[in-house]
Amino acid sequence: MRATVMYSAGDVRIENVPDPSIIEPTDAIIRVARASICGSDRWPYTSMAPSETGQSMGHEAIGVVEEVGADLRTVKRGDVVVMPFATQAEALRIPFADGTLYPLPVGEDDALMPSLLTLSDVMGTGHHAAVVAKVAPGKSVAVVGDGAVGLCGVIAAKRLGAEQIIILGRHADRIALAREFGATDVVSERGPEAIERVKELTGGHGVHSALECVGLDQAVETAIEIARPGGAVGRVGVPQHEAIPCAEPSFYNNITIGGGPAPVRAYIDDLLPDVLEGRIDPGRVFDRVIGLDEVPDGYRAMNDREAIKVMVLP
Amino acid sequence: MRATVMYSAGDVRIENVPDPSIIEPTDAIIRVARASICGSDRWPYTSMAPSETGQSMGHEAIGVVEEVGADLRTVKRGDVVVMPFATQAEALRIPFADGTLYPLPVGEDDALMPSLLTLSDVMGTGHHAAVVAKVAPGKSVAVVGDGAVGLCGVIAAKRLGAEQIIILGRHADRIALAREFGATDVVSERGPEAIERVKELTGGHGVHSALECVGLDQAVETAIEIARPGGAVGRVGVPQHEAIPCAEPSFYNNITIGGGPAPVRAYIDDLLPDVLEGRIDPGRVFDRVIGLDEVPDGYRAMNDREAIKVMVLP
Repeated sequence: MRATVMYSAGDVRIENVPDPSIIEPTDAIIRVARASICGSDRWPYTSMAPSETGQSMGHEAIGVVEEVGADLRTVKRGDVVVMPFATQAEALRIPFADGTLYPLPVGEDDALMPSLLTLSDVMGTGHHAAVVAKVAPGKSVAVVGDGAVGLCGVIAAKRLGAEQIIILGRHADRIALAREFGATDVVSERGPEAIERVKELTGGHGVHSALECVGLDQAVETAIEIARPGGAVGRVGVPQHEAIPCAEPSFYNNITIGGGPAPVRAYIDDLLPDVLEGRIDPGRVFDRVIGLDEVPDGYRAMNDREAIKVMVLP
Repeated sequence: MRATVMYSAGDVRIENVPDPSIIEPTDAIIRVARASICGSDRWPYTSMAPSETGQSMGHEAIGVVEEVGADLRTVKRGDVVVMPFATQAEALRIPFADGTLYPLPVGEDDALMPSLLTLSDVMGTGHHAAVVAKVAPGKSVAVVGDGAVGLCGVIAAKRLGAEQIIILGRHADRIALAREFGATDVVSERGPEAIERVKELTGGHGVHSALECVGLDQAVETAIEIARPGGAVGRVGVPQHEAIPCAEPSFYNNITIGGGPAPVRAYIDDLLPDVLEGRIDPGRVFDRVIGLDEVPDGYRAMNDREAIKVMVLP
């Protein structure tokens, strides 16, 4: 079968690898129906040191169960399942499948597939930023970053009842989508100007909740500086820095800083009904659909900001 | 009257200054009954740049109301009041006294005065660290720092129901007091050895709640590294650093980092009944009592770790 392997920065290849097979009785074999490329894949794509063996890529997928190990109790052959943190390939062996896979009450060609696919990572990650940043009804929220995670952060903030949602970003297509998802204000400045602009938009106070969806030092600094005294920052951008900036302003303003990799599987229980009943439509972050052979170009397109997020049909 | 003024690192003087008087109708004049020296005063005491005019010092006091402005409604002459963030002096003008002063149901010579005095800052600060670090019944807690704030952090953790309370410190007298306040374990190592030891004491997991009561880079790093995945750090040590260390470990472990200056006045409602009814006895952190003229030596004694905390009888 074919799978995606990265060998160094910018060097992504589709290779033939052995078909997966059941090894442990708790394994399941999944045929991948939809996969996607994650914004965080951009970091190895721009910086990975050369590797002779390469690294299997991808961690967002929906698939169909083809084989089940003897000890599985809940997952059955033919189930359509969402797989938090799986690989861009044609098929996969999933260990501890009863605990890992989340069966979906839909067929493989359901129109909701793009939105359901986001539950494997990106929507759960935007939701995690909002939960950690304590978004609640009536609160003011700022989302730092207009990538797919930031856009899902807007959806999450709206879903949790935020009154004001400020998106910080500068890409026209993403901003337009953010507005459709519920953003009430846009700040396209950066650095100190962005901080000043958010303060202006919030009566001088700053926001209750800042969602950091980038991972770069300046974005984290902005998120901390735009939070009001007693506010909270939820960071889900994979950190590209060793220390969190602004130790003093965050202290004197009693800002809480939290976040990290999202517990996406646990969040599916919360988010799935809203997807199934059409109350949220995070699948709209996919603006390009490609086959597995086009995955190397998909990485390039996301890195060049040609595409917000790429869906893969293996 | 006499008041404490700092002119540069190590240069603390008691000076004659004009007696305070009512200026605004919302002012009150307070005669100071008890004041204290705060661990955070150690930072200017070791680093303050020379100043020609000097800086009035102190921010923890209990006093008696001597005069009230015409607009005051709740504060009355003769009230014994606790003053979050006031000065080491004989008397003080307190602006917005109805909102600032907290009347106490005791006489000026009550035996509880030392414990009541801690409500002006140090006990509220230890409590803030515990609240921000989400201490709750059954949780494991580590307190980084065995100064007066750390000791009050132990009291707060015990009061909030923590099951395991690990104090990180190396001064025998302070450790002994920490044990009396409820510490169950002591870690006297520092740096990586301290982290390893806390892990050992918590079944390899780290603690649910880490209270950072120092403010130095290494202490913050230790607090973050000893928190278990999903745990929380409450920092109340005044930060002596520009950035919060461990951006990556705190991210990958989903650690929440919060804290700052404690909202001490708001906490008095919670803590006062426990002091009045003898359930907590934070006044035991005072191990030296001096007159106002001895305040310069009191700073030296705290800085040299001769005294845990110094009470001043003006």
